[in-house]
Amino acid sequence: MSRDKSSFSFDILAVDRASGVPMHRQLYEALRSYVLQGRLGAETRLPPTRFLAQQLGVGRNTVIAAYDQLLAEGYIEARPGSGTWITALNRPIAKIRVANDVSRNFDLSARGRRIASHPPPQRTRDKINLHPGFPDAADFPFATWSRLLTRNARRPSADLLTYYDFAGDRRLREAIADYLGVARGVDCVAEQVIVVSGAQAALDLIARILMDEGDIAWMEEPGYRGARSALLGGGARLLPLRVSRQGWSLNDPDLRPARLIYVTPSCQWPLGTIMRMEERLQLLAIAERRNAFIIEDDYDGEYRFRGRSVPALRGLDRAERVIYVGTFGKTMFSSLRLGFLVVPRTLAEPFARAISVTGQFAPLLLQATLADFIREGYFAAHLKRMRRLYARRQEQFIELCHQRLAQWMTVTENDSGMQVLGRFVFPFDDRAVAAAALARGIDVQPVSINYGHDEPEHGLLLGYAGLNAEQMMQAVTALRATFQDLARTPARREHRA
Amino acid sequence: MSRDKSSFSFDILAVDRASGVPMHRQLYEALRSYVLQGRLGAETRLPPTRFLAQQLGVGRNTVIAAYDQLLAEGYIEARPGSGTWITALNRPIAKIRVANDVSRNFDLSARGRRIASHPPPQRTRDKINLHPGFPDAADFPFATWSRLLTRNARRPSADLLTYYDFAGDRRLREAIADYLGVARGVDCVAEQVIVVSGAQAALDLIARILMDEGDIAWMEEPGYRGARSALLGGGARLLPLRVSRQGWSLNDPDLRPARLIYVTPSCQWPLGTIMRMEERLQLLAIAERRNAFIIEDDYDGEYRFRGRSVPALRGLDRAERVIYVGTFGKTMFSSLRLGFLVVPRTLAEPFARAISVTGQFAPLLLQATLADFIREGYFAAHLKRMRRLYARRQEQFIELCHQRLAQWMTVTENDSGMQVLGRFVFPFDDRAVAAAALARGIDVQPVSINYGHDEPEHGLLLGYAGLNAEQMMQAVTALRATFQDLARTPARREHRA
Repeated sequence: MSRDKSSFSFDILAVDRASGVPMHRQLYEALRSYVLQGRLGAETRLPPTRFLAQQLGVGRNTVIAAYDQLLAEGYIEARPGSGTWITALNRPIAKIRVANDVSRNFDLSARGRRIASHPPPQRTRDKINLHPGFPDAADFPFATWSRLLTRNARRPSADLLTYYDFAGDRRLREAIADYLGVARGVDCVAEQVIVVSGAQAALDLIARILMDEGDIAWMEEPGYRGARSALLGGGARLLPLRVSRQGWSLNDPDLRPARLIYVTPSCQWPLGTIMRMEERLQLLAIAERRNAFIIEDDYDGEYRFRGRSVPALRGLDRAERVIYVGTFGKTMFSSLRLGFLVVPRTLAEPFARAISVTGQFAPLLLQATLADFIREGYFAAHLKRMRRLYARRQEQFIELCHQRLAQWMTVTENDSGMQVLGRFVFPFDDRAVAAAALARGIDVQPVSINYGHDEPEHGLLLGYAGLNAEQMMQAVTALRATFQDLARTPARREHRA
Repeated sequence: MSRDKSSFSFDILAVDRASGVPMHRQLYEALRSYVLQGRLGAETRLPPTRFLAQQLGVGRNTVIAAYDQLLAEGYIEARPGSGTWITALNRPIAKIRVANDVSRNFDLSARGRRIASHPPPQRTRDKINLHPGFPDAADFPFATWSRLLTRNARRPSADLLTYYDFAGDRRLREAIADYLGVARGVDCVAEQVIVVSGAQAALDLIARILMDEGDIAWMEEPGYRGARSALLGGGARLLPLRVSRQGWSLNDPDLRPARLIYVTPSCQWPLGTIMRMEERLQLLAIAERRNAFIIEDDYDGEYRFRGRSVPALRGLDRAERVIYVGTFGKTMFSSLRLGFLVVPRTLAEPFARAISVTGQFAPLLLQATLADFIREGYFAAHLKRMRRLYARRQEQFIELCHQRLAQWMTVTENDSGMQVLGRFVFPFDDRAVAAAALARGIDVQPVSINYGHDEPEHGLLLGYAGLNAEQMMQAVTALRATFQDLARTPARREHRA
């Protein structure tokens, strides 16, 4: 069969003795359907009947009967001296529609269109990544990490091979509870810690099981786009909880009672505002009075270098209305995919059950290895080093921006340890700036994508944490050139009224 | 402060200079709230004012003013010669309600109650695990696996550290597409393969983005409980697609048009029936005519030892109505948490986008390592060994059951490579059998849990794949004793009319 150019494997043919359908008929049906769908094309030679009969464990007459029928119907043809071949049919090719416009893809349900309509985070390979939220990967102790990983993977214990508890690995949950008490002022027990495959999974899970479609949720405006996507994906009607450098507009009369309230009190994303104590107490009182749950996204609460760290809102919560969301994607590395929630005691069991349905649990191997990493002190040591590193980098980055970009963009200190907000002096369109910067090798996030309601402020949310001195210089130089270009062109935004 | 038994760290106190609230007021509020929530108990001594002022970087008068107010309000007390202590208050303790009845937990939304109402798979530690779907872990080449893992983890490439494509690691998707073509007759390209954190996540995702609440889905009856949970979690109204050893009741007049149709055509869960070719063609025609999607759960299509393997339904699908769901949890090990979907081309981008919202993507480290494992031939070699091993084990297990359990239970050959169905000769209640077996050290799954609609058949779905000869003997011996006990007691079910 050397001239047969097809990669079709006749191994996948099968007959079912128990089915009651004659075997030659089954074989005929299978071959015919493969021809019709184009898997068996005109360049395919059929195996000799004796050979195929042997392969399938059927009588040769069965194969002959099937071939005869296919021959009769024109699907195959006998070529003298060369065997039996598939006929070149004008077969109907299933049309491939490529509908990139998700909102008009009616194979999706209405809910599916809603969930899939949120553009995923866009990052481009082989560029300097100035996106917010990316830790330094060069300084992560991968050698230690892989040593611990190997220790667990080489001879996994029975506990690592079967899921007994969908809330996560017991040792990791204990380690997280201990860590949160000391580092973030969160008083909880391991039973309340639920491990999931990243903070995004945590947000999605909360939106799904604490809210019904059409329920109201308050979303920070501006606010973290991933949270907005999760809430909208869950069917929320979002009301903007406006935030400025002065604080949260908790007394906005338009804020009708909500089921969920999403906040980033330790360092507002993207503005960097820290929630004041009286705002915290007011917010807790609102949640308690209205039976709402507060989602506290403590996305980088670990990195504070000025003054003392701000304790988590969850630490003040007597009424168990706060659900704390944390991630190891920023303290470790972003593709780790381990996040967690701290939930009220009454919700621990329902969350674990829901995870068994949604499949948002994280691989136990990674959970156990992270537990070791924390227990053996590597996590604290790494955090300590990163805090110093990022503090230095923030200082350098801001200094560089002052020196070289001040004409176009103001960058101020930020309590977040991984990114700073650059506000434009000129009315540039931040998407145009990002596109132009990308052409110069810098992948950067426009601030305006964090707005879901109001006229956006334009600027850049600059993640400096992962950049070494050289990359930082390259990035700022490229941004300078970008601004110079744009200042010469008419690409600026119209001034707002 | 040696007598201080509290673990409270005053490090977490913070004042916000920019907030406009006097600093002593902020400090007062923080300390007061910690007292009220019980984090600062009567066994806590406050730090001296000078020390705390220094810690917080505030003037000593600020701390004194805060302490004075707390003293005035009775939250703290000065003990001569011993410093300032928290007063033993009769503080209000937030009531901890423990509502294990999820259906009445009104902190959850209606949707949340629905999702969390499905009991998660129950397995008990330190028992012999006879649950279906568990591969042999003792024979998995963990040494090779951990070597490949370390290679990727020690010096992860940039691609492994940042997510560029939420559909998964490119190399793994290519490896899966290649593998499916050869092994399962599925003709697809890497773009159509979407990697997720296990088959359960795949089912959940399909239900969410291809269906709206209240839409009709056909669910096999009996059928795989995890799929039923995912469909119900997505809000489906389920119509039973009845299956027997004779086949699928596709002509049931009660089957109103559905949006989704869930089937296990290669080997029906739990009955073991294989879908005949004409049923396959009829099902595809129904889906095409009614614009429904078929979910083909090919949960252990790899393990066929009798005759040839049955090609996947997806391989016959010209109209792109089949979504194929596969998992590596059964070919590798169950806690790996890697599964995948093969979707029509028009759905690839929406699925990837949805995953960026739901967080159901799998860690890239594991994806890349699995790609290596497949590409370097370890996967095929492992499968080949396991096929032989499980074939031998099935033979041994059935032989043992015939010899020792025939009086109570009939076990027949099954095309599934990992479990067989045991049908009771006596009208035992299978939950009672499972409970009694557990008391004898055998963790086993009753068949009746796979029914969602009809009066269930009782029996056991026996996963023998993970048992060595000794465990197998122990399991059968314990089951024999269990049956003997139950046959003597009146715990049998009432005979059905």
